[in-house]
Amino acid sequence: MLARECILSAPGKVILHGEHAVVHGKVALAVSLNLRTYLRIQPGAAGRVSINMPNIDTFLSWDVSSLHALLPARRADLQNAVEPDAAVVLKLREYAGLGDGLADTRSLAVLAFLYIYLFVFAESRELPSLTMAVWSELPTGAGLGSSAAFSVCLSAALLASRGAIACPAVEAAQTARWSDEDLELINKWAFQGEKIIHGNPSGVDNAVGTWGGALRYHSGKIKPLSSTPMLRILLTNTRVLVAGVRDKITKFPAIMNPVLESIDAISCECERTLMEMARGPEIQHYRVLEELIDINQHHLNVMGVGHPSLDRLCQVSLAHGLHSKLTGAGGGGCGITLLTPDTDSSVVERSIQELKDCGYDCWETSIGAPGVLHHSPSSLTEDVLKILNSY
Amino acid sequence: MLARECILSAPGKVILHGEHAVVHGKVALAVSLNLRTYLRIQPGAAGRVSINMPNIDTFLSWDVSSLHALLPARRADLQNAVEPDAAVVLKLREYAGLGDGLADTRSLAVLAFLYIYLFVFAESRELPSLTMAVWSELPTGAGLGSSAAFSVCLSAALLASRGAIACPAVEAAQTARWSDEDLELINKWAFQGEKIIHGNPSGVDNAVGTWGGALRYHSGKIKPLSSTPMLRILLTNTRVLVAGVRDKITKFPAIMNPVLESIDAISCECERTLMEMARGPEIQHYRVLEELIDINQHHLNVMGVGHPSLDRLCQVSLAHGLHSKLTGAGGGGCGITLLTPDTDSSVVERSIQELKDCGYDCWETSIGAPGVLHHSPSSLTEDVLKILNSY
Repeated sequence: MLARECILSAPGKVILHGEHAVVHGKVALAVSLNLRTYLRIQPGAAGRVSINMPNIDTFLSWDVSSLHALLPARRADLQNAVEPDAAVVLKLREYAGLGDGLADTRSLAVLAFLYIYLFVFAESRELPSLTMAVWSELPTGAGLGSSAAFSVCLSAALLASRGAIACPAVEAAQTARWSDEDLELINKWAFQGEKIIHGNPSGVDNAVGTWGGALRYHSGKIKPLSSTPMLRILLTNTRVLVAGVRDKITKFPAIMNPVLESIDAISCECERTLMEMARGPEIQHYRVLEELIDINQHHLNVMGVGHPSLDRLCQVSLAHGLHSKLTGAGGGGCGITLLTPDTDSSVVERSIQELKDCGYDCWETSIGAPGVLHHSPSSLTEDVLKILNSY
Repeated sequence: MLARECILSAPGKVILHGEHAVVHGKVALAVSLNLRTYLRIQPGAAGRVSINMPNIDTFLSWDVSSLHALLPARRADLQNAVEPDAAVVLKLREYAGLGDGLADTRSLAVLAFLYIYLFVFAESRELPSLTMAVWSELPTGAGLGSSAAFSVCLSAALLASRGAIACPAVEAAQTARWSDEDLELINKWAFQGEKIIHGNPSGVDNAVGTWGGALRYHSGKIKPLSSTPMLRILLTNTRVLVAGVRDKITKFPAIMNPVLESIDAISCECERTLMEMARGPEIQHYRVLEELIDINQHHLNVMGVGHPSLDRLCQVSLAHGLHSKLTGAGGGGCGITLLTPDTDSSVVERSIQELKDCGYDCWETSIGAPGVLHHSPSSLTEDVLKILNSY
């Protein structure tokens, strides 16, 4: 039933400013992270549905006929992605042999696939045979939106296979983006995937994975910025995981509430600066971004969500003139380091090496990259293409 | 004319919270620093006035008769210290051979002495012969109120010599405090001394030197706290001097104004905590003080008045579980480190050693100590007594 092979990718996300403050009603800026999840979908062996996710060591194959039995009674209006309900999820868990309580990455990824596959094709004449391969540059469980990038790829691939959205043409070595209308639909279904995986997601991660660039998140409202520059960064995973980091806002409200206000103003100033940079970036803009990063990192420490591993990241990078802050939950986890046009490549190399010497994972990448993309095979790096082609 | 010898001392000061913010209309807390300036005054060789200030290598002696010529036309109402005017100061400079522009510590100390001596005794029958020795534990020019401690000692000693204030009786090995009324008068004259030395002082330093303890300073109003505990600290002088540190408040007002509000709330929370501690200190109070120190240090860095030497101080002390912040102007200068009842003496020793290894001066002392004190000779340490007795 699938017309042809389709390769696509979606980015991860980082919080540029406003983590923690956002849950206290302040503005946050989320930006796409150009560590991407790649998905290749193609017509499969007749009567088989196979998914291959080497990152999480998951390789499964089902009979299409057995999947038919799972088709939901409530048929989907494709334009309005159906909310997952507990009974359906339980049925899928049983089918896939996933215990009720299992919430590991593999189980949840399989559930999200089965859910979107079944509901997208529920109204269709038949369930298609297909083979899917997924490869991600994103570490999982690091707050970098890897599940959303997966959900976005899954939704776009399955909606395109279903013919619900057009597949934008790509020339050799090129990528192409979907129309705004199609992106809306991709995002809706990706959000349902996120619900399967996270229960009660904010919708920010799938929105970033879909639209890319930057978006403003405030009191539950998500608004993509009309234009944003791509910014080079280092993404560092300290690999320290402090469970349940809680900020200290309630401890000294008179002292802490102004800190939240200041963070709100940082997000707004950053948004303003990014918009200006999209029109024509100047070195002065980078200096402002650096200052905002430094100020917010101090504020996050004040809020009690810092960690010595993050202090070390800041110190190591600052020793090379680079400015860093934690991103996301804090208490360890990840940090971002801004690179600027005047950052020498030797500085980047030395910084990466020193951060690795601290026991951290470190990637040179960018933020503000495009959202979900349709790829020509030749637009991929050889490494990625090789992995996707092995399945 | 002097009835008898009198030995007294006054403390230095540090800003506990609110430096920089205070000039933007926020509350600051200034506290006495128990590094003290000691002054011994005694009847001098007939017809001679001698001052000996070994810290600043200044030893001068004048004929009382030559000083008579300087007596001001405008006679002082002792109860209302006379504002120094430029013509008088110029005349004193000429007399003491100090060039018009000289603003070094020595010149200014001599001017302050001459001014207070002449104006306090202006209405008296005759100018007294006296010998004065001053010794200070305070470094000069470090923002620790050394000039105010000197002015306070000078005023108390000369007012007591003049009989304008009673000299409180001291038993052996004891110290005694003046009455509130007398302290008011001492403070008024010390403020004039500070004007000679600093031009346009806030009056905070002389108030702390006079009353000791802690005081709240807000929009030009100085209010001593009714009671404060003594707190053990390390005082560290990084010996880094960055001229003209200016905060960055005006750069991002929407981001910075909330930081000032937060600092205001820190000063208020600290004041509340100190008042509670004065009634009965608990370890939990110290934990609050430590948190306030950490938060404010971050805020001061946000305001751009930090310095790597101060970051280092914070890191070194934190490695021993101790919490530090800059005090005063920042950009180097001094920092304070809170010691608590559960701080082991070995921790204190190691911290001091490591800070000295950084090239810093470091003292173990206390804040919240009494203001100007009348001393029995046996209440002094042998070292101080020996120095004062050598002149």
